[in-house]
Amino acid sequence: MPRSGADARRRLREAALDLYREHGYDATTTAQIAERAGVTERTYFRHFADKREVLFDGEDDLRTVLVDAVAAAPPELPPLAVLTRAFTAAVPLFVAGRSVAERRQEIIVATPALQERAHAKSAALTEALATALAARGLPRPSALLAGRIGMASFGHALGSWDGRSASELERLIAESAAEARSLG
Amino acid sequence: MPRSGADARRRLREAALDLYREHGYDATTTAQIAERAGVTERTYFRHFADKREVLFDGEDDLRTVLVDAVAAAPPELPPLAVLTRAFTAAVPLFVAGRSVAERRQEIIVATPALQERAHAKSAALTEALATALAARGLPRPSALLAGRIGMASFGHALGSWDGRSASELERLIAESAAEARSLG
Repeated sequence: MPRSGADARRRLREAALDLYREHGYDATTTAQIAERAGVTERTYFRHFADKREVLFDGEDDLRTVLVDAVAAAPPELPPLAVLTRAFTAAVPLFVAGRSVAERRQEIIVATPALQERAHAKSAALTEALATALAARGLPRPSALLAGRIGMASFGHALGSWDGRSASELERLIAESAAEARSLG
Repeated sequence: MPRSGADARRRLREAALDLYREHGYDATTTAQIAERAGVTERTYFRHFADKREVLFDGEDDLRTVLVDAVAAAPPELPPLAVLTRAFTAAVPLFVAGRSVAERRQEIIVATPALQERAHAKSAALTEALATALAARGLPRPSALLAGRIGMASFGHALGSWDGRSASELERLIAESAAEARSLG
């Protein structure tokens, strides 16, 4: 019975996390990841564009949830309150992805080439939030400012989270937004 | 008569900006930069650690001015107001460095390897601001949050500046800080 695409993708991600941790990112090849996952290297490249992307699986889902939540927020809500609502909508993704995120973070910290990609991903997410806010009528520079403040505030919440419960992360997101307002 | 170290440094910076623009960053060597500046390659490496650093000359001065201004601000001032004051103190550096900054930006936009270094420089500046705020008694995570919001707000001001007058940049810094507060 052929394994499903989603299953192969999950196994490739797990295999990459294991191999990058065991041998380091630089010493691991996509062929080794595919072998460990029990698929061909061609299958690897059907799922991921390069050796780095396998680590950032899930970013597209996160962006979609955030952007949709920004679009769906009541029109009268101020921009940072819109972002607080969007990050709260993404809490289930962070709860589900916590174990992968922690293992990934260890590998990123040890690998300069991945820090660059992680930064690019974070900048792309900020851009997506700014674009979604601009679509609500906010001038583009103000939307980018709001996106950056929102990302800083959410990073602050995520940094204090113990990774256990969704309700704890929701509380921290609200607290961080309030703290950002209180710093001024 | 031997040329002074400061003069050689200035000429190396100008030569690098010219050559990177003319031939691209990747195709230019430190030997070519030194030759154009009329010094030896050994002199180049006495001033700059690598091919990228020549573009980021002045970052140390900026960090020093910002960190000193944070330390000197009245103790009762809220963190973001402290940062607004610090960026205002650095306005003369931005006025003096505007022409170099514009030419540098064109080169950075065209060169992925430099975007990475530019990001690292910006992250290091955020860290320095956070450390300076933490030294005033702010908890470290809150200091980092304030540093990120302050940098976002200052970037917003710099993005609208026409590069002409110091008083205009001072006005934009104050306006951006007010706008950041109004977003939430």
